[in-house]
Amino acid sequence: MGKYTVALDCMGGDNAPIEPVKGAVMALKSDPDLNLILTGPEDEIRRIFNENGGGENADRVTFQNTTEVIETAEMPTKAIMKKKDSSLVVAMNLVKHDSADAFVSAGSTGAVLVGGQTIIGRIPGVKRAPLAPLIPTEKGVSLLIDCGANMDSKPINLLQFARMGSIYMNKIMKIDNPKVAIVNVGAEEEKGNMLVKETFPQLKALPGINFIGSIEARDITAGYADVIVCDAFVGNVILKMYEGVGITFFHLIKKAYLKNLKTKLGAALTISSLKEELKKFDPSKYGGAPMLGLKKLVVKTHGSSKAQEFSTSILQCKEFKEQKISETVAEMI
Amino acid sequence: MGKYTVALDCMGGDNAPIEPVKGAVMALKSDPDLNLILTGPEDEIRRIFNENGGGENADRVTFQNTTEVIETAEMPTKAIMKKKDSSLVVAMNLVKHDSADAFVSAGSTGAVLVGGQTIIGRIPGVKRAPLAPLIPTEKGVSLLIDCGANMDSKPINLLQFARMGSIYMNKIMKIDNPKVAIVNVGAEEEKGNMLVKETFPQLKALPGINFIGSIEARDITAGYADVIVCDAFVGNVILKMYEGVGITFFHLIKKAYLKNLKTKLGAALTISSLKEELKKFDPSKYGGAPMLGLKKLVVKTHGSSKAQEFSTSILQCKEFKEQKISETVAEMI
Repeated sequence: MGKYTVALDCMGGDNAPIEPVKGAVMALKSDPDLNLILTGPEDEIRRIFNENGGGENADRVTFQNTTEVIETAEMPTKAIMKKKDSSLVVAMNLVKHDSADAFVSAGSTGAVLVGGQTIIGRIPGVKRAPLAPLIPTEKGVSLLIDCGANMDSKPINLLQFARMGSIYMNKIMKIDNPKVAIVNVGAEEEKGNMLVKETFPQLKALPGINFIGSIEARDITAGYADVIVCDAFVGNVILKMYEGVGITFFHLIKKAYLKNLKTKLGAALTISSLKEELKKFDPSKYGGAPMLGLKKLVVKTHGSSKAQEFSTSILQCKEFKEQKISETVAEMI
Repeated sequence: MGKYTVALDCMGGDNAPIEPVKGAVMALKSDPDLNLILTGPEDEIRRIFNENGGGENADRVTFQNTTEVIETAEMPTKAIMKKKDSSLVVAMNLVKHDSADAFVSAGSTGAVLVGGQTIIGRIPGVKRAPLAPLIPTEKGVSLLIDCGANMDSKPINLLQFARMGSIYMNKIMKIDNPKVAIVNVGAEEEKGNMLVKETFPQLKALPGINFIGSIEARDITAGYADVIVCDAFVGNVILKMYEGVGITFFHLIKKAYLKNLKTKLGAALTISSLKEELKKFDPSKYGGAPMLGLKKLVVKTHGSSKAQEFSTSILQCKEFKEQKISETVAEMI
């Protein structure tokens, strides 16, 4: 496998800059083909890098000093326009100008999405670039496409999501003939809102994808489909229900475990096995979400990411480049 | 509290007619003010009723013979039009003609919704009659409005849902000044799809409700809002994510418990406490979902309901009549 370069926004996310930089050190250690450009206040980033054992791989790192930071509360379009020397915009421009193959950030989702579309730009023919996280299921993972900032999709958008999602699951996740389903309120073709009713027959007729029909939200976690197509509003609701219901279940389990002496003893015997199982079901553990349909790879990592997730997100860029995902999308769209 | 009569569709749901009839017997035993009309094949219904100890309260029951059944796979509009002698249509007509105060069924959601609108009819001024289940949260329950069959809402629909939901939570669930929120993809006012962006300022300006702004799907289970307003497509996704993620968590817990001898022992010590906690979080346990905005009360009970849920659904009709919910909605809309 060949060399590749990732531009990492070291000021994005709740744990910046410490965790992104620690993640960079981890990734460099595990893959000798990786080169990194770290954007952020150079002195601070260098210090954290060296304090965490990055020194031995410093020859594969460029430190790119930046003076501004985009906060999550800022209006994305305005922030991208104004903060030209932010760690996010500088990293994106490095990708745009071919100094890096991919961009990774845990910063403001809105800013990543706007930056991806306006700085790096869409592949010609792609109408909208969706954000497509991998979500855990009982069978493995599925790709939920779109969870981005572009609401009120049209059928053509969903058709392109289906196609791009299929390419991703096939090339990156190595799933043969990935099953594509559209989120709906029932299994029957005549069900749904206007968007789904209009899109359904077009998906059915679309060559090159394995469309299996509607999927009800109840069946998503069971893993019936590999590519789950929906409008970004619905995708956001699905992703956040994963989180919300998950958190509530943790609270309920905790309450049940702390009820009395007997349950506390039982808890001690089961807790590590339970944690291990439940961890598999945390959507934030599956690296970053790729933004598909752009000229270069943009990966949005969960805001609360720690070093391990940054490292995973960085390393997944290799396969994306090797498999020529953007080139394949360009040919097929 | 006064007398009231409920028309029960004994052929609706996965467990019909046994569970609806057993539920009827339970409800009659627990409330002497209740009168029931049971629709379905009379001989069979009578037999189940008597076999399950209904005999002592037979004086408060009318058996209304019907010869047809609407299946869940049928097209709702066609089924309602054609099957005039179905248990569902006959029961609805009894409510329409004032022989009963309320209708309860676990049958096809589509048929209940269509029948509610076309047979019983909306309160003048109400544009759409939403289906509004109570959903469990960490703090108690919230009303999710709309989960019905009417997709592609307009702002006026959501405004009416907010108002009807507030009345319900105040009068029936006894919540002072219930907090109303709209489902959105972020907390900020400028976020959302077209529908939410257009509705938000109108909800803010609507007198007589306690609008607290947007709620992200992640925060629904935490119980931040009492009335959760959304389009029916989104409501359906939320409700079914509750189910799906819940089922998956059960599977994961089971797997963790069965891992080895130690975890099996721990499971034995914690299982009853855990079941007790998790049961609270099953949306199907909260009786039936009322369809609001109709001239009379229509309650849709979960398809898999057992006797206990039928009984709860029947008994909740009393409060609805006592509190004059339909009359209050008619005045306020």
